[in-house]
Amino acid sequence: MHVSSQQHAADRLLDAIERMAAPACVGLDPVLERLPDAIGPRTTDAAASLAAIETFCLGVLDAVTGAVPCVKLQAACFERYRHRGVELMHRLIAAADQRGLEVILDAKRGDVGISAEHYAAGLFDEHVSTRAAGAEAADDRPDWVTINSYLGADGIEPFLRRGHGAFALVRTSNPGGDALQSTCIVGNETGAATVAERVAVIVAASGDTHLGHRGFSSLGAVVGATKPQDAARLRELMPRQIFLVPGYGAQGATASDIMPCFDQHGRGAIVSASRSVIFAFKPGDGAWRDTVREAALAFADEIGTTVRLR
Amino acid sequence: MHVSSQQHAADRLLDAIERMAAPACVGLDPVLERLPDAIGPRTTDAAASLAAIETFCLGVLDAVTGAVPCVKLQAACFERYRHRGVELMHRLIAAADQRGLEVILDAKRGDVGISAEHYAAGLFDEHVSTRAAGAEAADDRPDWVTINSYLGADGIEPFLRRGHGAFALVRTSNPGGDALQSTCIVGNETGAATVAERVAVIVAASGDTHLGHRGFSSLGAVVGATKPQDAARLRELMPRQIFLVPGYGAQGATASDIMPCFDQHGRGAIVSASRSVIFAFKPGDGAWRDTVREAALAFADEIGTTVRLR
Repeated sequence: MHVSSQQHAADRLLDAIERMAAPACVGLDPVLERLPDAIGPRTTDAAASLAAIETFCLGVLDAVTGAVPCVKLQAACFERYRHRGVELMHRLIAAADQRGLEVILDAKRGDVGISAEHYAAGLFDEHVSTRAAGAEAADDRPDWVTINSYLGADGIEPFLRRGHGAFALVRTSNPGGDALQSTCIVGNETGAATVAERVAVIVAASGDTHLGHRGFSSLGAVVGATKPQDAARLRELMPRQIFLVPGYGAQGATASDIMPCFDQHGRGAIVSASRSVIFAFKPGDGAWRDTVREAALAFADEIGTTVRLR
Repeated sequence: MHVSSQQHAADRLLDAIERMAAPACVGLDPVLERLPDAIGPRTTDAAASLAAIETFCLGVLDAVTGAVPCVKLQAACFERYRHRGVELMHRLIAAADQRGLEVILDAKRGDVGISAEHYAAGLFDEHVSTRAAGAEAADDRPDWVTINSYLGADGIEPFLRRGHGAFALVRTSNPGGDALQSTCIVGNETGAATVAERVAVIVAASGDTHLGHRGFSSLGAVVGATKPQDAARLRELMPRQIFLVPGYGAQGATASDIMPCFDQHGRGAIVSASRSVIFAFKPGDGAWRDTVREAALAFADEIGTTVRLR
C-alpha cells in the first residue's frame, strides 16, 4: 500500500482484482533448494543464501506483475534467517508495492490483545529507518496479514487498522487441520456446527464493524481450497469476509473446488498458488522468469475464467 | 540451552525447577513506556528505544537470576521493532543462557508442516553469525517456544527437536479466549467436552512420542491460570504435559487458582508472571533492579510454597 493511500483495505483489494479480472494471488515461499541453477551459489552461508533468495524473489515479482493483482509472502521462509530475513522480507514488501501489487504477509500471528498490538505495530506502523534511502514512496508495510484467532476477538481487533486488513485462519488446507477444525460442536443459536464454523461466527462478528464501501470487511478469512465441502457453509456464515483461499495447485485443489468460496457474482475471494507458480521451471531453465510469468498468467486465466470474470 | 547440552528439554526444565524449588518463570514483556526513569531516553528513535530496552532487559535478567529457573520472552515486544528487535531478542536469549536460565520464547507460531519447519529452523538451528563474537558458549536459541495448534499435529511436530520443546496453546488467559475455547463439542470417545479439551487430546497424542526420562513430554501446554475450573480436567487429559501457566499476578489469578495445574507432587507445571515482576518498581525508583529482584523472589516463594516445594 502506498503511504498516501488510506483507502479501505477490502475496497482496494477488490478493485485490484477487478482491474486484472483475476482473483489470484501468487505466494512467495522461497526455499534455497529450489532456486534456479542460474541463481547461485548453493551455500550454507546465511548472507549468500539471502542474497540468492532476494534475487529470486525480485525476479518472481517482476514476472508476476501484470499477471496477478496480489502476492503473499510466507513469513516463515524469511524468519528462518532471523533478523536478516526479516529485513529482506520488508524490502520485498516494498518492492512489491513499487510494482503496484497488493501484499499479504502470511505470518499467522495470534496473541492476547496487548501482544497483538505489538505485532500490529511492527507490521503496520511506519518504520522509516528500514525504508530504502532515496527510494520513492514504496511502502514496506503489508496491506494484509494472516492471523490466528484461537485466542478470540481481542487478539483480532488490533490488526484492523485504517488502510490495512487481516485474514483470520478459519479452515486450513493441511492434513492435520481436520482434527480440530472439523470437530462437531454442540448446537447453539449461531448456527455453527463445527469448530471452524464457530470461528467463522466470531470472525463475522468482529469484522462487521470494519466494512468498506463495497460491503466487504477488512477482516477476511483463510478458507483452504482443499475443503470445498465446507466452503459453501462458511460463505453463508461470513458474507462480508473476503476469503483467502490457499491450497490451489501443489496442494491438489482444482478449479471447481474453489467455486463455493465466491459469491454468485464471482466476488469475495482470492485464490493463492505458491509452489506451482514460483517453482514452475526446471532447475536448469535459463529463462525461468519467463516460465514463472507463463505459469502466473495461466493460473490467473484459469481462476478468472472459472469464476467468469473473463 | 548450552550448545553442548542435548538433554531432553522436559528433564532439563524440571531439574531446573527443582534446583530452585520454584516452578516460576518471569516474563520479559518490555515496553518503552514503562521503563524506569533511570533508563533513557524517551524517544521515538528505534535504535535508542532498543538500546533502552536492552539495558532494561539485561537488568531484569541479572535481577531474576538465582530467584527463578526460567524466563519467557514475549516475541511481539521485540518484533514490533522488526529486524533490529529480532536481533536483540536473540542476544537476550543468549544473555539469559549465560546466566543459567531456561528460556521460553513466547512466539505462538503456528503454520502447516512445511512452514512450521522453517519457523523451527529459524529458532533452533545454529545461527553462528548472530552469536556474539568471542563470547563463550552462550546459545541464542530458546529452549522452548510457544505454538498455536489450530492447524493440528503436522504444525506441531517440527518444533519437537532434540534438546528443545514447545508449549501448545490449549487454554488462554485472555478475555476473548472463552468464545472458542469453551465451546462445547459433541461427545466422542476421547472424553473431550470443549474445544480446549479437544486440543488437549491432540496435544497429548502428539507429545506421547517425545517423553523424557522423567515421564514428561517436550510438548507442553499453555493453560491460563485464570481458568482454574478447566485446569483440573486438562491435567487429566494431559498427564505427560508440562503446563506453562500465564495469567498470574497482573492478570488476576491467585495462588489457589494455579494448584489444579500441578500433579499431586507439586510437579508438572511452571507459572509465569510478567508485568507484576518486571514493572514492580515506581518510575523514579533508582534501585529498580533490587525492586525487581525482590518481586521475583517473592513470586518464586509464593509459588514454591503454594505447591509445597518449600
